[in-house]
Amino acid sequence: MIHTIAILGASGYTGAELVRLIATHPAMRITALSGDRKAGLSMGEVFPHLRHLPLPPLQKIEEIDFSGIDLAFCALPHATSQAVISALPRTLKIVDLSADFRLRDPADYEKWYGKPHAAPDLQHEAVYGLTEFYRAEIRAARLVAGTGCNAAAGQFALRPLISAGVIDLDEIVIDLKAGVSGAGRSLKETLLHAELSGGTMPYSAGGTHRHLGEFDQEFSLLAGRPVRVQFTPHLMPFNRGILATVYVRGNPAEIHATLAAAYAAEPFLEVLPFGALPSTRSVGGSNYAHVGVIGDRLPGRAVVMVALDNLNKGSSGQAIQNANLMLGIEETAGLTLAPVFP
Amino acid sequence: MIHTIAILGASGYTGAELVRLIATHPAMRITALSGDRKAGLSMGEVFPHLRHLPLPPLQKIEEIDFSGIDLAFCALPHATSQAVISALPRTLKIVDLSADFRLRDPADYEKWYGKPHAAPDLQHEAVYGLTEFYRAEIRAARLVAGTGCNAAAGQFALRPLISAGVIDLDEIVIDLKAGVSGAGRSLKETLLHAELSGGTMPYSAGGTHRHLGEFDQEFSLLAGRPVRVQFTPHLMPFNRGILATVYVRGNPAEIHATLAAAYAAEPFLEVLPFGALPSTRSVGGSNYAHVGVIGDRLPGRAVVMVALDNLNKGSSGQAIQNANLMLGIEETAGLTLAPVFP
Amino acid sequence: MIHTIAILGASGYTGAELVRLIATHPAMRITALSGDRKAGLSMGEVFPHLRHLPLPPLQKIEEIDFSGIDLAFCALPHATSQAVISALPRTLKIVDLSADFRLRDPADYEKWYGKPHAAPDLQHEAVYGLTEFYRAEIRAARLVAGTGCNAAAGQFALRPLISAGVIDLDEIVIDLKAGVSGAGRSLKETLLHAELSGGTMPYSAGGTHRHLGEFDQEFSLLAGRPVRVQFTPHLMPFNRGILATVYVRGNPAEIHATLAAAYAAEPFLEVLPFGALPSTRSVGGSNYAHVGVIGDRLPGRAVVMVALDNLNKGSSGQAIQNANLMLGIEETAGLTLAPVFP
Amino acid sequence: MIHTIAILGASGYTGAELVRLIATHPAMRITALSGDRKAGLSMGEVFPHLRHLPLPPLQKIEEIDFSGIDLAFCALPHATSQAVISALPRTLKIVDLSADFRLRDPADYEKWYGKPHAAPDLQHEAVYGLTEFYRAEIRAARLVAGTGCNAAAGQFALRPLISAGVIDLDEIVIDLKAGVSGAGRSLKETLLHAELSGGTMPYSAGGTHRHLGEFDQEFSLLAGRPVRVQFTPHLMPFNRGILATVYVRGNPAEIHATLAAAYAAEPFLEVLPFGALPSTRSVGGSNYAHVGVIGDRLPGRAVVMVALDNLNKGSSGQAIQNANLMLGIEETAGLTLAPVFP
Repeated sequence: MIHTIAILGASGYTGAELVRLIATHPAMRITALSGDRKAGLSMGEVFPHLRHLPLPPLQKIEEIDFSGIDLAFCALPHATSQAVISALPRTLKIVDLSADFRLRDPADYEKWYGKPHAAPDLQHEAVYGLTEFYRAEIRAARLVAGTGCNAAAGQFALRPLISAGVIDLDEIVIDLKAGVSGAGRSLKETLLHAELSGGTMPYSAGGTHRHLGEFDQEFSLLAGRPVRVQFTPHLMPFNRGILATVYVRGNPAEIHATLAAAYAAEPFLEVLPFGALPSTRSVGGSNYAHVGVIGDRLPGRAVVMVALDNLNKGSSGQAIQNANLMLGIEETAGLTLAPVFP
Repeated sequence: MIHTIAILGASGYTGAELVRLIATHPAMRITALSGDRKAGLSMGEVFPHLRHLPLPPLQKIEEIDFSGIDLAFCALPHATSQAVISALPRTLKIVDLSADFRLRDPADYEKWYGKPHAAPDLQHEAVYGLTEFYRAEIRAARLVAGTGCNAAAGQFALRPLISAGVIDLDEIVIDLKAGVSGAGRSLKETLLHAELSGGTMPYSAGGTHRHLGEFDQEFSLLAGRPVRVQFTPHLMPFNRGILATVYVRGNPAEIHATLAAAYAAEPFLEVLPFGALPSTRSVGGSNYAHVGVIGDRLPGRAVVMVALDNLNKGSSGQAIQNANLMLGIEETAGLTLAPVFP
Repeated sequence: MIHTIAILGASGYTGAELVRLIATHPAMRITALSGDRKAGLSMGEVFPHLRHLPLPPLQKIEEIDFSGIDLAFCALPHATSQAVISALPRTLKIVDLSADFRLRDPADYEKWYGKPHAAPDLQHEAVYGLTEFYRAEIRAARLVAGTGCNAAAGQFALRPLISAGVIDLDEIVIDLKAGVSGAGRSLKETLLHAELSGGTMPYSAGGTHRHLGEFDQEFSLLAGRPVRVQFTPHLMPFNRGILATVYVRGNPAEIHATLAAAYAAEPFLEVLPFGALPSTRSVGGSNYAHVGVIGDRLPGRAVVMVALDNLNKGSSGQAIQNANLMLGIEETAGLTLAPVFP
Repeated sequence: MIHTIAILGASGYTGAELVRLIATHPAMRITALSGDRKAGLSMGEVFPHLRHLPLPPLQKIEEIDFSGIDLAFCALPHATSQAVISALPRTLKIVDLSADFRLRDPADYEKWYGKPHAAPDLQHEAVYGLTEFYRAEIRAARLVAGTGCNAAAGQFALRPLISAGVIDLDEIVIDLKAGVSGAGRSLKETLLHAELSGGTMPYSAGGTHRHLGEFDQEFSLLAGRPVRVQFTPHLMPFNRGILATVYVRGNPAEIHATLAAAYAAEPFLEVLPFGALPSTRSVGGSNYAHVGVIGDRLPGRAVVMVALDNLNKGSSGQAIQNANLMLGIEETAGLTLAPVFP
C-alpha cells in the first residue's frame, strides 16, 4: 500500500531532505508540496539536486486539496506551524518538524519562545516525537512533534542513564558541536561561507538555547524531579552533523552497559565499544546515530558522545520514522540508506 | 533473484562506496570482501560509517572461495588488478575499477602507465565501461573496465558532439575541477587537510594526466581520426565531485540540442535548460550527472559543463550500473538514491 | 612622515582588509572610518578580529571632516562610489576600490553596468590602478580606480604576452576559480556555507561577467586592435584566492621567458620555474602573486596560471600599493607580509 | 641591533610560521635553517608561500655553524629535541617548541611521554614558556620550553582564576576544539582532507592527552595542591585555531572581572565584554587571543572561552615573544600583525 504525502514548507533544508528520503521510500508517494515564497516553481528549480524526481509543483498551502492525503509533514518555520496546522483537516495525520509542539506546558512554551502559544489544544494533543522513547504514543497519534536536532542528540546520550539512575542528575554538561544546516536556509551574516568556514564559535551559550526547554521537560519527567543541564552549542564549519560531548558523573562501565542494553534492539542507534569515539562523518546522510562512552582519568566521571546527522536522524529521518509508525508501515522503511563517506 | 558479490580492495574509497550502494541494492548480496592490509578486520573497523551492516570480514584475496560468487568488483590499485584478475576463475564476471583495462592498445597502456601490460589477453577481452555508450558490449561481457572518473565527465560532455560532428575536433579544452577523494585514501602531503583545504591548484597539467589516454582512444574512435584535447585538472578542496568545464567551437544551440537528444532517455544524465549552470553540490552522493550548455559572447563558441560525483557516477555507481547489465538486472537497480544536499 | 587616511565603506571585507594592512603600515594612520549602516559602532564590534586596534569609530560619510585627511580609500558598493566621490573635496587623493571608474569609455560603462555613468568627468580623470603597468600615471593621479580582482589575475597572465606579440590574440580562454570573499559580505543564498561549501559551480558564464569590460579595454589598448577573450569564473568553496588558468597559443618557452623578463624586477609578482604550478594557498593573506607557465602536449599551446589573494593583491593590497605611489611612499611599504600557510 | 637566528626543523608548520613572522620582525634575521629530510632544498621549494624571501638553504643540523648565531628556535619533533639541544653550544640561547622540556619533573615526563628523559639537566634548566606568566624567568633564561598549544589556551582561561581562588578547583572541564595544523605535517589517515573535512570527532579523550601533564603541573603549582581537570580535545575541520570551552564553578561576574584585571595590561590577551563569545576566526594568523566569559542559567556556574591561533599564539608566535624577552627586544616586536579575516 502506498500512502499519499504532502510536505508543507518544502523549500527549506528539512523539506528537501524529506523529499530525498521519500524518493526511495517503498510505501510513500508525495502528492503535494508547498513553498509559499516559491509557489509556482518546480522543486528542481528550488533544489537542483532533486530535479530528476517526478514531483508535484510547489503550491501555496491554501491551494492544496488535502482530501486525498494521508499524512502531511509540516516543515514550516516556528510559529507559522501553529497557525497552519490549526487550519488543516482533523482527519489528516501530521508530523510537525518545527518547535511549535515540542513543549507540553504552555508556560514553558511562552518562556522559551517569547509569546503565548496560539493553538494550546493542538499543543496538548501533540506527542513528542523522539521515536525510540515514544513508540506507542506515536503509533496512536494524529499529531507528532519532531524534536530539536540538538535535543535528540542530548537525549540519546542521557535518557537511559537518567532512567536507570546511574548518573548524578545535577552534574551534566552538554558541549555540542552543530553543523550549519541546523540553522536553515536563512540569510544571516554568520551563516555566510566567508564568515563561518575555517573556524568555530559558541552560540546561544549560558543556558539560552531553546532546545534546553526540551531537555528540561524530558529529563525532569524521566527523573521525577527537576533536572537542569548545562548546554553550550558551537557552530561548526560543516553542513551536516551534530556531535554532543556529554560530561557525566557515574561509573563509566555501568554507563556504557546501560546504553548498550537500552539500544541493543534499536535499528538506528549504534553503541560503539567502550572507549571508541564517534565521528559525525560516520553518520552523515543517514538516520543512524553513533554513541560512544569513555571513562575519564578522574574516578567516577565519564564522557558520553553522540554523533548524528541533524537533518536526517535529527529532523527529517526522525519525522519519517514517526510517520512510518503512524501509518502502520515498517518503522525502518526508507531509512536504511547507509551514511555517505567520504 | 539475489546475486552474490565479492569486492576486492574493499578498504579504499571506491570499495566503501560499492558497499554503501549495494547495501540497498535489491538484487545483490555481498558475500566476500578483501582488503589485504586490513585482512582480519571487520568493515566497520575500517569504515565506521558501515558498521551497522551485516558484512563478511575482510580477507586476503587468496582466502576467498570464488565458487559461489557471481560477480566480483575489483577496486584494487592500478597494476595490482592485472595480476589479481589473471588468477581469478574464468567463470567469474568482473567489473574492474582500476585503470588496468581501460586502454585497448598495449602500446597506449605502456605509454601512459610506464610499463608493459602484464595481462594483454585480458586487456583485449575487456569492454570499456562507459555504460551509456557501450550497453550491448557490457551486457555480453565477462570483464568490464570502469572508466577514469575525469574521463567519464569529459566524455559525457563530448561524445555526442563528436559523433554528431557539431564541434571542431581540434579546438577542445577541458578544464576540470576534481574533488580529493579521486586520489584515494593515500598518504600524500598534498592530500592533507592542512595543505589542501581553503585553496586550489592545478595538477598533472600540460597533457600529462593519464585519463588523456582514454580521451584519445575514445574520441579518436568516434571521430575516425586522431583527436587530441587539452586537459587541465585542478585539485579541489572538497571530497566528492567533478566539474568539467569544456570549451568547444560550434553552434551553442545545436550543441545543446545534440546533448539533450542524446540523453533524453538516459536515466542518470540530466541535461539542464540552455544557459543553466550545473553544480557538483547537486549530484553529490548519487549516480546522476548534470550537463549544462551555454553559448559564449564570441560567436561559434560554447561551454559544456558536466557535474558528477567521482566516487559514484564516476566510479562505483558506474561499476554497479555495468554489473546490473552483466547480470541481467534492471540497469538502474540500487542507483536511484537522490543526491545529498546540503 | 605619517599620512592621514580615511576609509569609506569600512564595514565590508575590502574595508577590513585595508584596516588590517594599514595597522602595520609605517607611514599611514587611519583617522576616519565610515560605514553607513554601522555608523556609531566601533570597528571591533563589526569585525572582532580588529578589536585590539586603536581606531576611530564608524561614522556616516557626511560626518567626516576631510580637511585633515591626505588620502581616502573608497570601498563602497558599485554605483554608490560615483555619487560619494563626486561630493568629496577636490584636494583629496582617492583610491576607489569599486567598479565605478575602471572603464574609461562611458559607453563601455553603460554596456557592462546597465546605466549611464553619473560622474563622467571623474571617470575621465581616473587612472586604471593595475600598479605594475600604470606606475607613472598613478604617481601623478588624484583618483585611482582599483581593478577587478579577477581582472587583475587575468591581466597578470596576459599583458606582457600581448605586448610582446607572442600569443594568438583570438585564442585566449580564461578559466577562473574565485574564492567567495570576492562576492563581499552580502546576504545571498548562494553564498551561504550550506550552499557553497563542499562543491563548485560556474557563475556569470558565457561572456557576461563584468570584469570582461576591463579585459576588453586593456587588452585592446595593448594590442592596438579589439581583443576579446573567453572567460568563465567558478565560485570556489574557500574564502580567499583566485586561480586563473589561462589557455593560450604560442611557444611555451617564449611565453615563460616573456613573463619572467617582464616581472623580473617586480617586488610582488613571482614567476615560478617553467612547469611549476601555482597554488592559491601559497599567496593567501599577502600581496604576492605567483605566475606559472607550462607547455601543453599539443604543440604551440601553453597554459599560464596566476594565483593571488583577491582581497589583498586583487583589491586592498593593490589599493595600498597605489596609495603608496600617490603619496610618495616606498611602493612596498606595508605590503611585505608573507602569505599565511597552512 | 639585529639578532641572528637559526631555526632547527624549519620544514614543519611551526618552522614555517617562525619564518613567516620573522620575515617582518624588525630585530631578527634568519641565518640558518635546518630540515634534515629536506636538506639541500630551498625553503621556497618546501613551502612555496615563502619563496619570495631571501633565506639560507635548508641544511642538516650538523652542517650549521652556530658560532655566529644568537638564538635558535628548535621546532623538531618530540624526543628529537632532547638529543639535538644537548649537543648545541651552551652559549646559544634556545627556544624549544617541542614537548621535551615542558614538564619539570622527570617522573611526569616519563609518565606522559612513555620513556625516561634523555637530558634531565636541560629539563631542570628549562623555563616554562607561557610568556604572560613567566616573564622574569624567561628574560633570564638560556633555554625556554614552548607550551603545548592546547595547554596555552586552557591556561589563559584558568590561571588567574586559580590564583585568585574564585573557582572550584575540583570542577573544571575543558572541552577543546583544535584545528588540524596542531597535528603537524604528518602523513596520517585521520589528517587527510577526505577523512577530516566536513565533520568532527573527539581524540585522546578520557584524560589521555599529553597536554594534561602541563595542566596538572601548572595548576597544581598555582593552587598549592593537586589540581586535575577533565579535558576532551576534538579534531576540527579547519587548519588554524583553538577554541577552549571551559566549564567552571564560581561567580560569573567575579570570574570575568578577575580575567579582565589580570589581562588589562597584556598586549595580546583581549578579554571580551561579559557575555560576548569569541571565535577562532577573529584571531587566525595572529598572536592575539580572545577571552570570553558568560554566566550559566545554573547559579554559580560560568563558561570561560579562549580562542587563539595554535600555530601562532599557541606555538611560533609565543616562541618569538619569548625570544624577544631573552634577547632584550621589545616583547611585541614582530608580533602585532592583525588577524586575517575572512
